Amino acid sequence: MNPRTRRPATGLGEFAFIDRFLKPLAGHPGALGLADDAAVLALPEGEAAVLAKDGMVEGVHFLPDCPPDTLAHKLLAVNASDLAAMGARPLGYLTFLARSPAVDAAWLESFAAGLGAAQARFGMTLLGGDTVATPGPLTLSCTVLGTLPFGAEIRRNGARPGDRLVVTGTLGDAALGLRILKGLAAEEEGALWLIDRYRRPTPRLGLGQALRGTATAMLDVSDGLLADLGHILDESRVGAVVGAAALPLSPVARHMPGARDCALAGGDDYELLFTVPPHKLDAALESARRLGVQATLIGKIVAGGGLTVLDERGVAFEPEGRGWRHF
Amino acid sequence: MNPRTRRPATGLGEFAFIDRFLKPLAGHPGALGLADDAAVLALPEGEAAVLAKDGMVEGVHFLPDCPPDTLAHKLLAVNASDLAAMGARPLGYLTFLARSPAVDAAWLESFAAGLGAAQARFGMTLLGGDTVATPGPLTLSCTVLGTLPFGAEIRRNGARPGDRLVVTGTLGDAALGLRILKGLAAEEEGALWLIDRYRRPTPRLGLGQALRGTATAMLDVSDGLLADLGHILDESRVGAVVGAAALPLSPVARHMPGARDCALAGGDDYELLFTVPPHKLDAALESARRLGVQATLIGKIVAGGGLTVLDERGVAFEPEGRGWRHF
Repeated sequence: MNPRTRRPATGLGEFAFIDRFLKPLAGHPGALGLADDAAVLALPEGEAAVLAKDGMVEGVHFLPDCPPDTLAHKLLAVNASDLAAMGARPLGYLTFLARSPAVDAAWLESFAAGLGAAQARFGMTLLGGDTVATPGPLTLSCTVLGTLPFGAEIRRNGARPGDRLVVTGTLGDAALGLRILKGLAAEEEGALWLIDRYRRPTPRLGLGQALRGTATAMLDVSDGLLADLGHILDESRVGAVVGAAALPLSPVARHMPGARDCALAGGDDYELLFTVPPHKLDAALESARRLGVQATLIGKIVAGGGLTVLDERGVAFEPEGRGWRHF
Repeated sequence: MNPRTRRPATGLGEFAFIDRFLKPLAGHPGALGLADDAAVLALPEGEAAVLAKDGMVEGVHFLPDCPPDTLAHKLLAVNASDLAAMGARPLGYLTFLARSPAVDAAWLESFAAGLGAAQARFGMTLLGGDTVATPGPLTLSCTVLGTLPFGAEIRRNGARPGDRLVVTGTLGDAALGLRILKGLAAEEEGALWLIDRYRRPTPRLGLGQALRGTATAMLDVSDGLLADLGHILDESRVGAVVGAAALPLSPVARHMPGARDCALAGGDDYELLFTVPPHKLDAALESARRLGVQATLIGKIVAGGGLTVLDERGVAFEPEGRGWRHF
């Protein structure tokens, strides 16, 4: 609290960290070289600003031994995924980094390298942020800025009875990867792949934008399929029937115990879940195919409330757990 | 990390907190009622987006017993102050709240009330954010969105030799208030006022905008006058001469020991520091007067580098401390 008693523990102060590692990431002229109090950006003509913010705490949202470059990837990925879910194109991001005493110069360098790789992959650049010290766990937050044409956003409240329910990629991999990292599941072949799915999710940015005008409701699966589908149902005031047998499992996950539960209720997959009217289903699946993204029909929207999950025999059952509870 | 082992400690889960306390703050239609993955906003025609992000950690940036409504004020104020320093008009904000185990439902209610009062005062509304649990200290970050006409931003790099150096309000109050809170200074008359200056700074939003086209460089004094002036000098590649006797001290501060040191190097005042060409000085001071903001000429910009501080006899001296070091 008193500046005179606070000294960099690592030999790398905030300004050196910014100069050496962050300024090279601030490629957009609107970032003003990170030299000012704020970034100033003109948006493309006819486009709206899209803003989302997600944070992560060591020991809560990531394990203490998470490699810093991987953590940087995840921070940007989970935020970019929120843009994907609205149908927006990423433009830039701001970070908040509260560094724990364990964070040293090598950690910061690796973290910045991870930001650099991820921002290049997702098509955005650093616009600003804040770096502080904390005596507690490493804590990160990120705000992403994207754009989309006025009125083109895909919200959660547009699902209508009869709409088909589609999910991208495979489900449950991240939850299985986390189980392996925590020693709760045997390290089988493919363990590294599952762990990578947990640590380095892929936001479906191209498909999110391609689904503008096609999907009627969309979000990204961060808290678990059932919990997140619940948001679409609540906001759209509809119900859904999901076929558990239709859930897309990866070849690795398919052979692991608990895979179906993880696919239904495990979080961290960051796949897109969307609804689409029957006559646009083929177009949506074709968009995904063209972009090389797996897309699977897993159910449909029905009138009235409620979420029914059917097993392989078509019998309704109550799945274990309903997803991540934030606090 | 495992949703099934995580339960709200307070009886108020994330979704209830959002529904009950945060949604009423999300007055802008672009917030989409906090029901979606992101906010979507059209900016006024001809205006650029201005984005800044500042965070705070319990025990580092605020004392553990800080009243939650006051803390909410400070979180928004320090961020809005970054907008003021660019000359921008506030529009909205996103919050990240990592709640420590001590944060209960009453705390959250008071915090939300503080956000409500502050956002009304600063002219912005809640656009989104993220609320998580942390086993560590309470940690907050905020991203503000403002707007200004294309090209009208006031940067740090525009100071020119001969420009006059002006600061708003009074300096050192916040540092003295913090000393009192920490028991390092006697509780004199006016102690509560100084503490309030520390806890509830006033971003100079109106004047920031009024100085567009008049100020050549500007920032807000968050780390201490000398440290922040240093940023203007570095970015503008100029030097400055500051008269310590000219520094504006409040009537309360004037009688306290160490007031001048606090005015030179104490942080947290969130006053505007700006440079203005001599022929525009009167206009700048008149703008401040019209807005009821004290503005004081404290020095001038000179060619070459370096920062010279003169005492009351006009003799240069080396002030103690040079402001807040972030880590």
